[in-house]
Amino acid sequence: MKEHKIHSGWKSKLHEIIYEADTPSGKVFDILLFVLIILSVVLIMLESIKEVDQNYHGILLALEWVITIFFSFEYIARIISVKKPWKYILSFYGIIDFVSTIPLYLSYLLAGSQVLLAVRAFRLLRIFRILKLVKFIGEASQLQSALRASRTKIAVFIYVVLILSVILGTLMYIVESDEAGFTSIPRSIYWTIVTLTTVGYGDIAPQTALGQFFATIIMILGYGIIAVPTGIVTVEFSKQNKVKQHIPHVDINTQCCVNCTAEGHRDDASHCYNCGEPL
Amino acid sequence: MKEHKIHSGWKSKLHEIIYEADTPSGKVFDILLFVLIILSVVLIMLESIKEVDQNYHGILLALEWVITIFFSFEYIARIISVKKPWKYILSFYGIIDFVSTIPLYLSYLLAGSQVLLAVRAFRLLRIFRILKLVKFIGEASQLQSALRASRTKIAVFIYVVLILSVILGTLMYIVESDEAGFTSIPRSIYWTIVTLTTVGYGDIAPQTALGQFFATIIMILGYGIIAVPTGIVTVEFSKQNKVKQHIPHVDINTQCCVNCTAEGHRDDASHCYNCGEPL
Amino acid sequence: MKEHKIHSGWKSKLHEIIYEADTPSGKVFDILLFVLIILSVVLIMLESIKEVDQNYHGILLALEWVITIFFSFEYIARIISVKKPWKYILSFYGIIDFVSTIPLYLSYLLAGSQVLLAVRAFRLLRIFRILKLVKFIGEASQLQSALRASRTKIAVFIYVVLILSVILGTLMYIVESDEAGFTSIPRSIYWTIVTLTTVGYGDIAPQTALGQFFATIIMILGYGIIAVPTGIVTVEFSKQNKVKQHIPHVDINTQCCVNCTAEGHRDDASHCYNCGEPL
Amino acid sequence: MKEHKIHSGWKSKLHEIIYEADTPSGKVFDILLFVLIILSVVLIMLESIKEVDQNYHGILLALEWVITIFFSFEYIARIISVKKPWKYILSFYGIIDFVSTIPLYLSYLLAGSQVLLAVRAFRLLRIFRILKLVKFIGEASQLQSALRASRTKIAVFIYVVLILSVILGTLMYIVESDEAGFTSIPRSIYWTIVTLTTVGYGDIAPQTALGQFFATIIMILGYGIIAVPTGIVTVEFSKQNKVKQHIPHVDINTQCCVNCTAEGHRDDASHCYNCGEPL
Repeated sequence: MKEHKIHSGWKSKLHEIIYEADTPSGKVFDILLFVLIILSVVLIMLESIKEVDQNYHGILLALEWVITIFFSFEYIARIISVKKPWKYILSFYGIIDFVSTIPLYLSYLLAGSQVLLAVRAFRLLRIFRILKLVKFIGEASQLQSALRASRTKIAVFIYVVLILSVILGTLMYIVESDEAGFTSIPRSIYWTIVTLTTVGYGDIAPQTALGQFFATIIMILGYGIIAVPTGIVTVEFSKQNKVKQHIPHVDINTQCCVNCTAEGHRDDASHCYNCGEPL
Repeated sequence: MKEHKIHSGWKSKLHEIIYEADTPSGKVFDILLFVLIILSVVLIMLESIKEVDQNYHGILLALEWVITIFFSFEYIARIISVKKPWKYILSFYGIIDFVSTIPLYLSYLLAGSQVLLAVRAFRLLRIFRILKLVKFIGEASQLQSALRASRTKIAVFIYVVLILSVILGTLMYIVESDEAGFTSIPRSIYWTIVTLTTVGYGDIAPQTALGQFFATIIMILGYGIIAVPTGIVTVEFSKQNKVKQHIPHVDINTQCCVNCTAEGHRDDASHCYNCGEPL
Repeated sequence: MKEHKIHSGWKSKLHEIIYEADTPSGKVFDILLFVLIILSVVLIMLESIKEVDQNYHGILLALEWVITIFFSFEYIARIISVKKPWKYILSFYGIIDFVSTIPLYLSYLLAGSQVLLAVRAFRLLRIFRILKLVKFIGEASQLQSALRASRTKIAVFIYVVLILSVILGTLMYIVESDEAGFTSIPRSIYWTIVTLTTVGYGDIAPQTALGQFFATIIMILGYGIIAVPTGIVTVEFSKQNKVKQHIPHVDINTQCCVNCTAEGHRDDASHCYNCGEPL
Repeated sequence: MKEHKIHSGWKSKLHEIIYEADTPSGKVFDILLFVLIILSVVLIMLESIKEVDQNYHGILLALEWVITIFFSFEYIARIISVKKPWKYILSFYGIIDFVSTIPLYLSYLLAGSQVLLAVRAFRLLRIFRILKLVKFIGEASQLQSALRASRTKIAVFIYVVLILSVILGTLMYIVESDEAGFTSIPRSIYWTIVTLTTVGYGDIAPQTALGQFFATIIMILGYGIIAVPTGIVTVEFSKQNKVKQHIPHVDINTQCCVNCTAEGHRDDASHCYNCGEPL
């Protein structure tokens, strides 16, 4: 902690505020950012509701400008305060930060496009960055590694489900008439997936006795095979759990290396585990 | 048991009847209370059905008065028979007991409000208090501690599901037209959650080929990720189960301390484990 | 096996045919019974389809008579061939056998009642008796004992789900208008259970923004809490599985004691484990 | 590997290209086959969409001919390059390969039949043969053996679900009127399965209070008993997992015996494990 002032001056201070969450100013910054990200998402939602947009267009635009300006300054500050700016700019979060900042500027270049709206939705991904609560990260990473371990098995499962859907969908297209909604094979496959996953909208539903009989088989199949991903993930979680109990555990803090932006340092670490930079 | 008469007189007797379930009079009281609570809930339901309310309004109101008067006396009796009345009044069950008693009185102060109805629904929570069956409590507490242990993991999961819903909902809003029911982003998010959780009402359903394609992905996602909470809870239950086998087990009875209202005393206990009061 | 002829004569022979499945004639009888039970169920279904009933009423009635006569003789034969007839008559299967036999006779006493139809549906329960395949019984009993062990936990779970449904249903009744289908509290509770169990018919669906918001919470709740029964049953199965591996295992045959009708004898048993009667 | 040229000449070369995936030409062939199978499935889908078929019928037919000719040559090549052609022709994949090849030829014999379309859908099953990725096969076989082990338990479960559906369906037929959609027992059973598996189309929905009450019970039942297959499969996966850790593991390659077409040879194997033919 003492050696923190090596990359001295205001840049180091800025880095601490923006990238870390264990100093008071760092926490305040994180909370402010969190509020603004949530606000920006709420704004997108409100704008999409016609009545709200008609009555409060001015206010919504003003708030949008506030967020855009804050995000712009934050983006520039992030670039300045890191030693290797390009590493940040081309990183996952760097791209998301950039994409979150530009929609309003773009709207003056490109006339009223729907795509801008989609781009703004990416802002939500930014929330992941604030959730630096160590506990949450610990739990999430355990879930992640369990899911990563069961990746291949789940891919095999999804592959089998898709092939089943294509075959059963084609079968239903042959059995059912156009009137019931089975107008083409892709649409029948859509219906099969709706049924197999037990969603069941009811916009398309079999009318003939034979169609209903096959539908019944698809339902029981779907009801049964949900056991497969559940079984896979449960076994994997159970393994992760045992592994966790055996490996020694260290406390991790929210510091972020000034040099390489690596995170997840040990609480008692004095140098970055990734590049050796003093913390 | 013998020292039970220390807090002598009718108050002690009243306490035994109201708060405990292992004496005959205590059991009778509990069953009577159970019947009245169920009756009060049934009354609320019946009143909400227009035909029933029109034809039997008098009878329903009379029964409502019976319940209210019983609950009023019971509430007063509970306050009197405890040594520290305020501790009871401000406890969870104390507040529920109070809220369960007042709706009918309130209806004379506030003219015919819908809110009263909601307040009366809280009466159902009272059932929890009667279910002093030791076995049930034992099982429930095991379930509870398993769920409490998996709290953080489930919070991470719900957080990810919500973010996914917002992103996918916005995507569907862009892809689908207003005619299909995707009139605003909040509504599209509502549809996404309906689909992701495999509920699938069908009041809103994608019409375009692209929309149905994305819907298919959302469904398979929802079908698959249900494995995650299931896996978490299963592993936690399994751990609880092993823990239970190792710790020694004692029988617990339904007595309730006269002084501090603590429950779950050992069957052979002669003093409250919480405040030392003789039982 | 040699001592089988002690309860000598045709009664013993009849007992072997009817109650057991390891002699050739016993197997033939079981297959015949199986076919007739399935046929009787198919008949009930066909009669309920108006077009079929109008066109083939004569054939259906004739087949119904065939089944009824067979069941009548079989019921009498079962009574005769057992040493303690009343024990059989008052047993679970004895009552089902009787109930399966009488509907057609009753239909001449009671004019064309709907209830008869329901009584005939009980015939399906008879299938359980034929499935004397040892392997199936072994697996089923393992499932059964696992479910029996998790009974209390599942009861607690269902109880909590029901209370949640009542409270959330009342809430939705207050929030949503009559037009959306929430005309009474019982109907709102029905909708809540439809949503919580992720069935989602869509015959009743929230219309207001607030209602859809609460619906969303109910859905995520329902999506998440399915993990609880799954976790309970999985842990119980897992325990059963370990127990099975530790206890010694014997082969069980399909013989049935002539005296007390107990089943599940060891393959090498010479006397009934229940009453000592030689097999 | 060196002894590979024993079954010398172009036949051996052809065998290597068609049946194996570890030589460059073998890989190219597999990728080409994969693309053509996917293309053939996409063609079937596109033809079923009326607008597409009307506008691009010529192109679709031309592509269909390309695929059919390729599949024809491939089928002949497969027969030639194997030592025992009849073994291949009568094998599972041999039949699928044949069925995948003939639809277009058949369409000139049999005038425009719907059945041809179904036959063409079998082409998708061919994809299984290409997925010779060792990793995938390993994972899939583990899933398979877990599912095979839990086969009997799942059969018992499905059997119980079906009997429940018949009994509850008959009950609902008696309770609900024709107007609600419960016009016959088979249709009521269809509805019961739709509800029990939590699909819930909503095309048929109970209207009476009693019907909705029973529906509620069916839903909670369906919501609860999904725990059973999940529990079974999870325990089985967990067992497979432990077994896998204990048994020694060898690498398997994609070679296929020229004599008996057996697959899954050890990477260091010089003779077929099935017939002793040198590889």
